[in-house]
Amino acid sequence: MQTRSVHIGIFGLGTVGGGIVELLRRGGKKNKDYNFALKKIVVKNLDKRRKVSVPSELLSCEPKSILDNPDIDTVVEVMGGIHPAQEIVLEALKKGKNVVTANKALLARVGSKIFEKALQNNCYLGVRASNIASYRLIESLTSSPSKMEKLLGIFNGTCNYILTEMEKKGEDFPIILKRAQEIGYAEPDPSDDIRGYDTAHKLIILLGLALGYFIPLESLYVEGIERISYQDILFTKELGYRIKLLAIAKKFGDELEARVHPALLPRNKGLARLEGIENGVEIKDEGGLGIRMQAPGAGKYPAAIAVMEDLICIAKGRKLFLPQEKISLILKPMTEIQTKYYLRFNALDKAGVLAKISNVLGNHNISIEAVLQKGNGEKKIKWVPIIMLTHKSREKDIQSALKQIDSLSVTKGKSLLIRVEEEIF
Amino acid sequence: MQTRSVHIGIFGLGTVGGGIVELLRRGGKKNKDYNFALKKIVVKNLDKRRKVSVPSELLSCEPKSILDNPDIDTVVEVMGGIHPAQEIVLEALKKGKNVVTANKALLARVGSKIFEKALQNNCYLGVRASNIASYRLIESLTSSPSKMEKLLGIFNGTCNYILTEMEKKGEDFPIILKRAQEIGYAEPDPSDDIRGYDTAHKLIILLGLALGYFIPLESLYVEGIERISYQDILFTKELGYRIKLLAIAKKFGDELEARVHPALLPRNKGLARLEGIENGVEIKDEGGLGIRMQAPGAGKYPAAIAVMEDLICIAKGRKLFLPQEKISLILKPMTEIQTKYYLRFNALDKAGVLAKISNVLGNHNISIEAVLQKGNGEKKIKWVPIIMLTHKSREKDIQSALKQIDSLSVTKGKSLLIRVEEEIF
Repeated sequence: MQTRSVHIGIFGLGTVGGGIVELLRRGGKKNKDYNFALKKIVVKNLDKRRKVSVPSELLSCEPKSILDNPDIDTVVEVMGGIHPAQEIVLEALKKGKNVVTANKALLARVGSKIFEKALQNNCYLGVRASNIASYRLIESLTSSPSKMEKLLGIFNGTCNYILTEMEKKGEDFPIILKRAQEIGYAEPDPSDDIRGYDTAHKLIILLGLALGYFIPLESLYVEGIERISYQDILFTKELGYRIKLLAIAKKFGDELEARVHPALLPRNKGLARLEGIENGVEIKDEGGLGIRMQAPGAGKYPAAIAVMEDLICIAKGRKLFLPQEKISLILKPMTEIQTKYYLRFNALDKAGVLAKISNVLGNHNISIEAVLQKGNGEKKIKWVPIIMLTHKSREKDIQSALKQIDSLSVTKGKSLLIRVEEEIF
Repeated sequence: MQTRSVHIGIFGLGTVGGGIVELLRRGGKKNKDYNFALKKIVVKNLDKRRKVSVPSELLSCEPKSILDNPDIDTVVEVMGGIHPAQEIVLEALKKGKNVVTANKALLARVGSKIFEKALQNNCYLGVRASNIASYRLIESLTSSPSKMEKLLGIFNGTCNYILTEMEKKGEDFPIILKRAQEIGYAEPDPSDDIRGYDTAHKLIILLGLALGYFIPLESLYVEGIERISYQDILFTKELGYRIKLLAIAKKFGDELEARVHPALLPRNKGLARLEGIENGVEIKDEGGLGIRMQAPGAGKYPAAIAVMEDLICIAKGRKLFLPQEKISLILKPMTEIQTKYYLRFNALDKAGVLAKISNVLGNHNISIEAVLQKGNGEKKIKWVPIIMLTHKSREKDIQSALKQIDSLSVTKGKSLLIRVEEEIF
């Protein structure tokens, strides 16, 4: 097998960068099959103590030491953040260097520009590490002749772990989040995960690769799991559902519906069965065939391994594969989507309240499939949760009805809405 | 997007062939994007009534009308069987024609020869239709830089349906099989499915594509589900397992362990959760990453759609992708494998019998993890099932122990063995 030598410069020496250095060093079989040479590592701080020991002549604080070095043909960007990562990646591509990046946030924001630059300069752009859970899908999505039509994904192990544990332990969000942080299943700053942005980044990248269309991040509806309470998990269970944080995409001709939010899924099948840090994705293509993929959550070196795989593709002389036909899709406005809705109201425990709420919903063309109203037992508190599951309704109508209901004197606080999704096959 | 025109000759006009003709005809978007011309269909019997109507000038009984026609560049083989399919496929490749085939039995028997011929003559060989459930895997397996290390698959919808229904309905194999035949989930002659050969064919093809090594069919251990009874399903449930017909492959360096047989899987995770005609596969690669894929069973046109996808690849000018490094692996002898075993003996219901059986097992280095012995209640029959779950043991030792136990006067009939598999991630 003929391979070409790969001369590598790495930006960033954190967990992922350190993992790559170790993999390049121990190599074993890889070292025999491929000719990888690590030429330079650019870091912010030369004096920082690191887990992986690196000869000091390999380290530099100066991006130019990689970008202006004609001997380096491949740049690995694992520094994270938008700036200066964006400038570094674009500059490397402009200079004809291949780029491998694990930077989801960057690809989600300027993926379109980055891919264009890579195509213009005939460079390989490796993005496997941007969505470990579905990295095997990436190749299949970009090379399959049948276009994706529907996609449902659980892309964030932290959120799936929290939702699973809330159900198992019967505890509320803040307690479980704290425990997840203690055992390392949630970051010290978990906001990108729990607010849904990590999932959103992954969805944008996957759709960009599958369809050749990168949704602008600011146009994507993104909602996190912070407002889900243990009682919602109990109520949805009673209704036959399980709550998951989902990435959703549906293509109808030239129109694309895409969103990220918690959703109710039928309890006993498909993605709803994924537990803990498991990730998964379901895709149905134009041909009508569906594939469900599941992958366990992060292991030891997953991002570093995904980067290595892209480096191997470069050694093998692979070309960048992006859908040739760049299509332009119309993003469906969130107000126009139609699903069933799970609604939770905090309402006065007295006669006539249910009628008042139902009345508002009826006036907005929203019909009810099921109601759960739990009595208060002996307690004196007069506020009780009322749960409603609607038939298929329009988001615009629901939002307007909820606004009106929240202003009634028989309800207190902001009512909660969770959308309902069906399995796609 | 530049595509080339594809001039097609089809062998066979059964369900799959008819489906392809219909897809080529209605086409819709496809017809616009691709230039497919159906030139000739070779059938056995010109006068047979068919669901799809075809102009008579398109039909022929003469293979040469396709093979010797220089205007036809692509042959679709959906006639099935080994002869003359094998001669036709090899002749077509020899003449430089691309070949798309749905013929699992053929590929499993002479896949190595067929792929070699395709590579020699620089032809595209399309085999997506040979394993619908994992056709998206095929590309990923052949093109991934990380080699497969472990594979576990449920590849046969008929068997999975039968095993699921036995558990749900509490009925035995022959009754469920009959019902499956009535509703079309089992063929009128289901022997290839239930004896495990359909699964074996798919395993051989997948491994051939993933590793570049085609296991000779006669060297592969293949066992079907005919001997599984409802009581085994109950006992395994009690032990926390579920019985599935599995395709199994494990690579240790240059050694390959591969087999097809019913196996116990931990009940509540992974493949064990697949129900009815669902198919699925789990793969762990050298890099330590695992993917689980699930696909619903056969839909309306799945094989025909998979063939269309290969035709689109041909139109796009794709090259055949087979692992460049043809590796030669040593197949581990079945006698050398080691797993846990579920054993069912039909034994006399009296004191000392359990000791006798355990004694034989102990003498063969087999230790017991669990025993289930069900009393006979008030009934007079003195034969009762004894169930044992062993610790990890060697197949050779188990076979030799069972032979000795079957010859004891306190047991009757042939005892049953089902191997136990662990989830691979």
